[in-house]
Amino acid sequence: MSESEVSVPAPQEPGPMEPAPHEQHGYTSNKDAYLRRLKRIEGQVRGIARMVDEDKYCIDILTQVAAVTKALHAVSLGLVEEHIGHCVVGAASEPDPKLRAETIDFKVKEATDAIGRLLR
Amino acid sequence: MSESEVSVPAPQEPGPMEPAPHEQHGYTSNKDAYLRRLKRIEGQVRGIARMVDEDKYCIDILTQVAAVTKALHAVSLGLVEEHIGHCVVGAASEPDPKLRAETIDFKVKEATDAIGRLLR
Amino acid sequence: MSESEVSVPAPQEPGPMEPAPHEQHGYTSNKDAYLRRLKRIEGQVRGIARMVDEDKYCIDILTQVAAVTKALHAVSLGLVEEHIGHCVVGAASEPDPKLRAETIDFKVKEATDAIGRLLR
Amino acid sequence: MSESEVSVPAPQEPGPMEPAPHEQHGYTSNKDAYLRRLKRIEGQVRGIARMVDEDKYCIDILTQVAAVTKALHAVSLGLVEEHIGHCVVGAASEPDPKLRAETIDFKVKEATDAIGRLLR
Repeated sequence: MSESEVSVPAPQEPGPMEPAPHEQHGYTSNKDAYLRRLKRIEGQVRGIARMVDEDKYCIDILTQVAAVTKALHAVSLGLVEEHIGHCVVGAASEPDPKLRAETIDFKVKEATDAIGRLLR
Repeated sequence: MSESEVSVPAPQEPGPMEPAPHEQHGYTSNKDAYLRRLKRIEGQVRGIARMVDEDKYCIDILTQVAAVTKALHAVSLGLVEEHIGHCVVGAASEPDPKLRAETIDFKVKEATDAIGRLLR
Repeated sequence: MSESEVSVPAPQEPGPMEPAPHEQHGYTSNKDAYLRRLKRIEGQVRGIARMVDEDKYCIDILTQVAAVTKALHAVSLGLVEEHIGHCVVGAASEPDPKLRAETIDFKVKEATDAIGRLLR
Repeated sequence: MSESEVSVPAPQEPGPMEPAPHEQHGYTSNKDAYLRRLKRIEGQVRGIARMVDEDKYCIDILTQVAAVTKALHAVSLGLVEEHIGHCVVGAASEPDPKLRAETIDFKVKEATDAIGRLLR
């Protein structure tokens, strides 16, 4: 069983295309709802660990893992929706045409890459 | 944002095809490794909540969600492997031919349904 | 083996939010490349049928099915990228603010729903 | 747009663990049904190419791509089910205990790897 570490990235300085820290993101207005959903997912993962610890039937554990994966997909889709509607569309309001085109391309590519990571 | 509850199923009496509680499952010998992995996934989910709370960039959050989904897939695959190798193959050792065929069919269908839920 | 029919939708009149038929879509400039990729995918599916017909080993067939699924994912991602960059961003150029907000919401929701169908 | 070629593997000599060509695979009894399904999927892919050629709306194309992906998943699951029920369980009937354990391990690993490729 491989146990490759997937680390949470360290906070970084915002790049040229990234919003400044004080800027609102698409999801900010739903922040509390996201935090509640993630809290629940955290509890579900803990529930799966408990099932393993109590030697529950593998198929029942797999069902729970599928449920958590689905809940994470729903969170992802919400983030994608707010990202496109906020950050990508926001880039379209840049007045300078050249910078606008570049920023849109960058944001769209970034969003598509993120969606691609979800599909894999 | 829909927040449908995905509850961890209540402990049930084992059905006729389910192993008795004292029986070992396929994953039992790797139990500690699974518990460590799930502990780490739980920490990753908590890390995502922290990122949301600290208004981190949506794309970075999506990357972490994709990483957790991948880690859950790896756990699922491990469970599937041990389930097939242990529970399905175990059914093949049932001496009564009629009961053996029925049990194998049941176990294989159950495993495939579980894999189908992971694919969706 | 269920064989539910998944039909190609009949051509429809464009709805109020849909582009008129003469309008270009995001993918139009890459049309030939998409057609080549789809031609190749069609050939891959035919190759899988041939493998089944020639009683090839199930695992080798599964590997090819996974390759086709991956190729379709790549096509999807390309379409999503061009859709966001063209249709969604295009909606942001609507001069009337109320109509702009509505169109963006509609387009973003539509794109996210399409991504959700890919994830499932 | 990357267009990496995913080639159908050339016919190979069966390896030591592979069934001889005259042996039946799990899916053989449903061969005609699989061929019909794959024929339909091939037609769906052709339908998608037609939609691209006729400049149909990107979202409608994405919906069809998702439908084909789902149809391929269903084919995969059928193959996985028959593979586990036939090839993996078949390995369990090998009389020599050492060879049986090795063959089961090999078959289960092979099946799990194939499932892993579908999940990615």
